[in-house]
Amino acid sequence: MIALKGAQVSAAIKEQAEQEIKKLKGKVPCLAIVRVGERPDDLSYERGAKKKLESFGLESRSFVFPETIENESFQKEFKAINENPEIDGILLLRPLPRHLDEKAIEKIIDPQKDVDGISPENIAKVFAGDETGFAPCTAEAVIQMLKVNQIPIAGKRVTVVGRSMVVGKPLAMLFLKENATVTICHTKTENLNETCKNAQILAAAAGKAKMLNQDAVGEGAIVLDVGINVDENGKLCGDVDFESIGDKAAMATPVPGGVGAVTTAVLALHLVRAALSRMD
Amino acid sequence: MIALKGAQVSAAIKEQAEQEIKKLKGKVPCLAIVRVGERPDDLSYERGAKKKLESFGLESRSFVFPETIENESFQKEFKAINENPEIDGILLLRPLPRHLDEKAIEKIIDPQKDVDGISPENIAKVFAGDETGFAPCTAEAVIQMLKVNQIPIAGKRVTVVGRSMVVGKPLAMLFLKENATVTICHTKTENLNETCKNAQILAAAAGKAKMLNQDAVGEGAIVLDVGINVDENGKLCGDVDFESIGDKAAMATPVPGGVGAVTTAVLALHLVRAALSRMD
Repeated sequence: MIALKGAQVSAAIKEQAEQEIKKLKGKVPCLAIVRVGERPDDLSYERGAKKKLESFGLESRSFVFPETIENESFQKEFKAINENPEIDGILLLRPLPRHLDEKAIEKIIDPQKDVDGISPENIAKVFAGDETGFAPCTAEAVIQMLKVNQIPIAGKRVTVVGRSMVVGKPLAMLFLKENATVTICHTKTENLNETCKNAQILAAAAGKAKMLNQDAVGEGAIVLDVGINVDENGKLCGDVDFESIGDKAAMATPVPGGVGAVTTAVLALHLVRAALSRMD
Repeated sequence: MIALKGAQVSAAIKEQAEQEIKKLKGKVPCLAIVRVGERPDDLSYERGAKKKLESFGLESRSFVFPETIENESFQKEFKAINENPEIDGILLLRPLPRHLDEKAIEKIIDPQKDVDGISPENIAKVFAGDETGFAPCTAEAVIQMLKVNQIPIAGKRVTVVGRSMVVGKPLAMLFLKENATVTICHTKTENLNETCKNAQILAAAAGKAKMLNQDAVGEGAIVLDVGINVDENGKLCGDVDFESIGDKAAMATPVPGGVGAVTTAVLALHLVRAALSRMD
């Protein structure tokens, strides 16, 4: 089994970004990272994103609010960031604490600055297969992982496990756009393993540590693992038991070092494009 | 094989609508049907819709424009209909002639009056599984056909053939919302028959006369035919060769007399709900 590493895909995306940065005529795009509270997941993603942006030559600014911030104050602060002309793109770390109205923020965010595709306008575009908007970075990272590795998607049987709005559903739509035959599985799917085994490309985005193993992988399948979980020993792991599938899968992405590294590269590329669209 | 007729499902939806109409305190909802040109398909759907609305005790008004209307004039006229306080819901007959900007109209239409779910806001809601908006009537008609007939959907393997924004994609999302395991097929799908045969519920929405026959239907499957086509003898027919599947399918919807009759009933129900939402 070949391990599909994120690093080389990230490097290819960086080259693409560098071409587009040239058109910015010296302007350095700036991402606002909006975080409420100090959740370890958020902090870890924020660190990774900042590092990646820096390596792409891009700027970022963190806007951090206490977990106790009131809904109205948060909306006011968010609107100010949204309208700030120095900010080209916004990454909102989610989920927000329950007392904050996440849906309202999705409607406030300027679709042009919405580099992680959370606004209704961008979501509708992903659904429609319209590539002029921003898709959620993680979903797009899966497609980039395949494309940069020149793995054909058109006509393939693809199974996506998970139906969240952050990954599962948009990813299914991106696969459809690439002309795959797409099956969406979830917690209510009967015979999950059988449905997964039938897939030539299997994308796991369920958010449950090692929930899929060799019994869910068909001979020669390509496995993309979107999960970032912590296993019983406190170690990072994916939704797929990577060790177990070596004799079945042809290729698979490890966790860490797989899709995650590509996600932040896609974020950086989106930021460049957001800055470009604001120059028009 | 049992033929699933639209008439009894339409009658059940009428009962539901009558309950909701009571809350309108005498107000009679009015649908604007917006048509450009005289396409036979449009005229036929318009006639069916008007008849159904009348039978539900609802009003409709046709707004007809010549095929030669300019884009700017059409947008102006459409805005006036959209803002007209006497209009509770709008059905735009599509596709529009090519020189008219359909995407612009989708953005103009008030989501609250958008009873056929064409606005980005309603589309995003269907994608997200948020039932507070309007789904496209045909897609919802398929789900109603199953629900009124008390056919379980949760956990079933469902295959949708077709990925249009009018039926295929929204229908896939509605099935997902009902906890089905959903596969989406299209023109680029390899081994289409095999994928269809694996489905417990098969929904055909490809818009191609009799493109599916007994070879695409699994033993005991339930077949929903969304297609409305004209066959080589000039007769209405679906995407499924109804005659051929009698020994395979457990139940199937005929064309005409199947999903189509339910679609206009869903349209009427949506109109009542649009009027209700405007009372708040």
